[in-house]
Amino acid sequence: MTHKIAILGASGYTGAELIRLLAGHPAYEIVALGAYSKAGQRLAEVFPHLRHLNLPELVSFDQIDFDKIDLCFCALPHKTSQEVIRDLPKHLKIVDLSADFRLRDPDAYTQWYGNAHGAVEMQGEAVYGLTEFYRDEIAKARLVAGTGCNAATGQFALRPLIEAGVIDLDEIIMDLKCGVSGAGRSLKENLLHAELSEGYNAYAVGGTHRHLGEFDQEFSKLAGRDVKVQFTPHLMPVNRGILATVYVKGDAQEIHATFADAYADEPFLQVLPFGETPSTHHVRGSNFCHIGVTGDRIAGRAIVVAVLDNLTKGSSGQALQNANLMLGEEETSGLMGVPVFP
Amino acid sequence: MTHKIAILGASGYTGAELIRLLAGHPAYEIVALGAYSKAGQRLAEVFPHLRHLNLPELVSFDQIDFDKIDLCFCALPHKTSQEVIRDLPKHLKIVDLSADFRLRDPDAYTQWYGNAHGAVEMQGEAVYGLTEFYRDEIAKARLVAGTGCNAATGQFALRPLIEAGVIDLDEIIMDLKCGVSGAGRSLKENLLHAELSEGYNAYAVGGTHRHLGEFDQEFSKLAGRDVKVQFTPHLMPVNRGILATVYVKGDAQEIHATFADAYADEPFLQVLPFGETPSTHHVRGSNFCHIGVTGDRIAGRAIVVAVLDNLTKGSSGQALQNANLMLGEEETSGLMGVPVFP
Amino acid sequence: MTHKIAILGASGYTGAELIRLLAGHPAYEIVALGAYSKAGQRLAEVFPHLRHLNLPELVSFDQIDFDKIDLCFCALPHKTSQEVIRDLPKHLKIVDLSADFRLRDPDAYTQWYGNAHGAVEMQGEAVYGLTEFYRDEIAKARLVAGTGCNAATGQFALRPLIEAGVIDLDEIIMDLKCGVSGAGRSLKENLLHAELSEGYNAYAVGGTHRHLGEFDQEFSKLAGRDVKVQFTPHLMPVNRGILATVYVKGDAQEIHATFADAYADEPFLQVLPFGETPSTHHVRGSNFCHIGVTGDRIAGRAIVVAVLDNLTKGSSGQALQNANLMLGEEETSGLMGVPVFP
Amino acid sequence: MTHKIAILGASGYTGAELIRLLAGHPAYEIVALGAYSKAGQRLAEVFPHLRHLNLPELVSFDQIDFDKIDLCFCALPHKTSQEVIRDLPKHLKIVDLSADFRLRDPDAYTQWYGNAHGAVEMQGEAVYGLTEFYRDEIAKARLVAGTGCNAATGQFALRPLIEAGVIDLDEIIMDLKCGVSGAGRSLKENLLHAELSEGYNAYAVGGTHRHLGEFDQEFSKLAGRDVKVQFTPHLMPVNRGILATVYVKGDAQEIHATFADAYADEPFLQVLPFGETPSTHHVRGSNFCHIGVTGDRIAGRAIVVAVLDNLTKGSSGQALQNANLMLGEEETSGLMGVPVFP
Repeated sequence: MTHKIAILGASGYTGAELIRLLAGHPAYEIVALGAYSKAGQRLAEVFPHLRHLNLPELVSFDQIDFDKIDLCFCALPHKTSQEVIRDLPKHLKIVDLSADFRLRDPDAYTQWYGNAHGAVEMQGEAVYGLTEFYRDEIAKARLVAGTGCNAATGQFALRPLIEAGVIDLDEIIMDLKCGVSGAGRSLKENLLHAELSEGYNAYAVGGTHRHLGEFDQEFSKLAGRDVKVQFTPHLMPVNRGILATVYVKGDAQEIHATFADAYADEPFLQVLPFGETPSTHHVRGSNFCHIGVTGDRIAGRAIVVAVLDNLTKGSSGQALQNANLMLGEEETSGLMGVPVFP
Repeated sequence: MTHKIAILGASGYTGAELIRLLAGHPAYEIVALGAYSKAGQRLAEVFPHLRHLNLPELVSFDQIDFDKIDLCFCALPHKTSQEVIRDLPKHLKIVDLSADFRLRDPDAYTQWYGNAHGAVEMQGEAVYGLTEFYRDEIAKARLVAGTGCNAATGQFALRPLIEAGVIDLDEIIMDLKCGVSGAGRSLKENLLHAELSEGYNAYAVGGTHRHLGEFDQEFSKLAGRDVKVQFTPHLMPVNRGILATVYVKGDAQEIHATFADAYADEPFLQVLPFGETPSTHHVRGSNFCHIGVTGDRIAGRAIVVAVLDNLTKGSSGQALQNANLMLGEEETSGLMGVPVFP
Repeated sequence: MTHKIAILGASGYTGAELIRLLAGHPAYEIVALGAYSKAGQRLAEVFPHLRHLNLPELVSFDQIDFDKIDLCFCALPHKTSQEVIRDLPKHLKIVDLSADFRLRDPDAYTQWYGNAHGAVEMQGEAVYGLTEFYRDEIAKARLVAGTGCNAATGQFALRPLIEAGVIDLDEIIMDLKCGVSGAGRSLKENLLHAELSEGYNAYAVGGTHRHLGEFDQEFSKLAGRDVKVQFTPHLMPVNRGILATVYVKGDAQEIHATFADAYADEPFLQVLPFGETPSTHHVRGSNFCHIGVTGDRIAGRAIVVAVLDNLTKGSSGQALQNANLMLGEEETSGLMGVPVFP
Repeated sequence: MTHKIAILGASGYTGAELIRLLAGHPAYEIVALGAYSKAGQRLAEVFPHLRHLNLPELVSFDQIDFDKIDLCFCALPHKTSQEVIRDLPKHLKIVDLSADFRLRDPDAYTQWYGNAHGAVEMQGEAVYGLTEFYRDEIAKARLVAGTGCNAATGQFALRPLIEAGVIDLDEIIMDLKCGVSGAGRSLKENLLHAELSEGYNAYAVGGTHRHLGEFDQEFSKLAGRDVKVQFTPHLMPVNRGILATVYVKGDAQEIHATFADAYADEPFLQVLPFGETPSTHHVRGSNFCHIGVTGDRIAGRAIVVAVLDNLTKGSSGQALQNANLMLGEEETSGLMGVPVFP
């Protein structure tokens, strides 16, 4: 059976990545591609790397007949997304890639995003889309909220440890390095090649990055108490990749064993042998996440390093993984592509 | 039916690219991975991006039982390759990715490569592996010689024009720009990141690059007379990609029409609308080749630009395309992966 | 004696490069920095790499007292530049880095730039700023028009050959590769890191690039007849650098000797030994231009390769070199900084 | 007065950077360039970016007449350096850029570097070359040991805080990101462009990086007690730059004030306004170090970020700064070059 798919926001990077992944999927057919300013353009103009695909041109959202669609991916900016999704037909399954339905608490949403939520009632309905930890709810959900790409990385590096109680919850420091495609295709001076290449910098220092809303929600829920991590993202001169270096207090061997156990059956979460360190080079263009654990010379401390591709496992790959569950397909279908190296 | 595959030279970049492509192929099983200095290592050590694949460790060639193998890819350095292939069992189908069997004329081989050929008798038997132009021979061949990556690009940009007689054969200039993975994984000072990134340069200037041997052979054969192109490669600070800018004398519209006609049914060769120009960004990690034609302000001149990924369409993807033909599989099988952008 | 300097357009890349070079110059003092949208900002905000310099904040042009200024650099977009310069006081020496006063013929200007010129009377007065070839006129000029960065590179690679009559004037092909800072600090999608890095492409193919107006004017004037070159620029994923590969018909040794002779006393134009090829890596951040000549395997053809840094020798370094002449300083003053490698 | 200078190890990156800086210095003359495997080559072959300089060719060390030399820079690998320096004439002033004389304690040296020291007696004589903190000793020293580039960055970010007692000495975590030129010009697989570009990874995780020996020595000495920091370096796909993100416990405003006070008169150490964050882009090619302090959302924590260019302030620029002191020149002479951006 072929499921009919629409993508809203097809002219951005996560939209393009969805198309790339869906093109290789045996059970899905893309029937509509929605966009704003680029509506009316052929896909080959907007993304020449997709020119060989026989896909519809970009249209505005009101030109799409949602009755013929089984599942809609929304790859829109936050705030826009909630307004669009609020008005979509209620029969439609939706995977939202924006930040709009990640937080259950409307106040937390307003605190981190600065505006009142335009679809408060749907915030409760939405399921948090970190597949490996919400499989059953996702399979039954109508609306799934894709996680932040940094938030996904950080959670893969910490959830089993928090759940197992093997680290000090008050002393977690996450130093994260993210590629530039995570910032999207928007025209900002700091995203220009001449500004970004050959150098790097921290940003949102001091606990102001919005993905902290997800960490706070998820880690506190897991621990049954308030957990606040310290989090500093850095902008890297590469297009794809996130590497989170997480400093924790606990026994390194126990931490490694906890991961090995928790992820033993996970197809995408690869735990490296103790003492080995992963690299973003080795997950590029794929849905895999590599995780390494090392002890420190200071007793009782450990370093967890997790890497993934922000556009794939951190965003569009995760979205497809969730859609597979929602539509009754094999979870890994269309997602086993090998990383591209070099 | 599953064909049993061996790869000799699995620790280099074309070896890794073969594994990446074969991992997604429904009809092939990799049963042996051969290497020299890295024999004895696990694949996850040599190429951590392949760690999730359940593949054999690297072994030396004499540990491989070739009786159980249907087809062998040889991704070895030139000169080594001829010596290894000479001694392989005669039942074995072979796709060679080296330069060793590309030239039919032993003297031409010696001229360009500087040594006498060690398997002269097999030079005659080998079929030149530019799939789109040698399909029938390849399907029946036992030994196929993969083309040079630059040579493939240049031929996609010129063969139909030479065959159709629409350009001046004495006035062809090819200015080519190649990514660094084309030089392999060898430890050379000019391939270090600090030497190469942020800059670029011409090399082998003046008609000394070895891929000219292939151009001479193929273009002269096509034209039925001696054809010598002028060819200058440049080393680019990127990992993947070849762009050939070819300056020809002829009618630009006729040239475009010639390509459109010749490549109308080719799944991987995409001819852009007249006046559009392709980019290496849009073929990365894929088996596609994009070709654009533009007229010049000087009447009677045209510029042909062709792009492809040197590791895929220029090497390992081409090899798999040939193997598909040799083993009776669909030619495009395992090769329709969408380019990775950004 | 200290000359008082103003820079209009200090918030762009050529403005920043001027400040970098002037900061190390013993005889100049920057007394005013003019900008449009960034007027009112501190220099440390606009260019944090200049934060240690004790310089005035950016102001709008009408806040500048030009009576106290000896020389003004205009690093503004074309069309804007002519309107601003038209209204500047007539005592003021001006080095314009825009395209506005490069072409002597108003019709040629309109043809290439699409608008009527707003200061036609000054087009005649302006001196073309290719220092090595217009020294005497520049020393006496009030208004000097800096050349295009591509135009400078191409002229260094061709002027002595055209003047000496050692090449075929109807068969010149220039394939040029330019770093991204040449496109300025403007917010365009194709200049984003994610769009540009890891790939490259030709643009303005077929003889439509505006710097051809300069080539036509200068080469025809030199030759005493119409000369039209074929010119294809390519956008490279690096910030700084231009490499022009020029295909000519002539005797390679004679061509090399012509350069060696013509540039024997030039401090910035370095002619490499015959057969050696320059690289953009080796001129980065400097005012040097390296030039190499190689013969081709096809008799009677040669390849000239010239490299320079588009922001320095191609633009702001050239501007300072001209200002030195106009103000009676040593021509090389402030410009002998060694290239930055790696 | 002109001081005569020799450089041993002129064919490596720190050697080239010394030549770049010395070429612009009014009081120094390079009279000898020593190398091992590249002895006998012209400088233009080894470093084409230096081709315009009128400098001697590379020679083996025994061809150098050290009697005519005032100061010798040793830019050799560690272990080699101690053996060479041991045998140099005793009148010679020496700035060593290797690791060999950084540690006062022979046992600490052996612990971190794995071999017994070959010039133990000189370990006591050498002065640690972190200019801003050892000025008086350096001015009087015969042998100065340049610091590790990471070690310099980390100390600029921590010394005033440790000295002033404003942070918790048991809870210091330094997450550092370093460009590839810090690894030198050696032929290693992980330094190849194809392996390194477009990605990044942690290395020497868990407290095994050798620069920890310097941190331990210096911080413990400053504090008057044992201080052990947690330190994780990461390899970045850029040529130049170090960024240290340091997580400390203390009052952020007090920390900022401590830096502002300590570095108020330092020409190269630029303290940013509170809450601003530096970037490696803005110190490239220069001797400047930018330092930013931000508070965290978790009370009582702060983040210090320090950036510098590993080849300049982290190595060869520091070496020249020390040489200036040793030879009675102005400390900043030849070092005020403005960072190269973009």
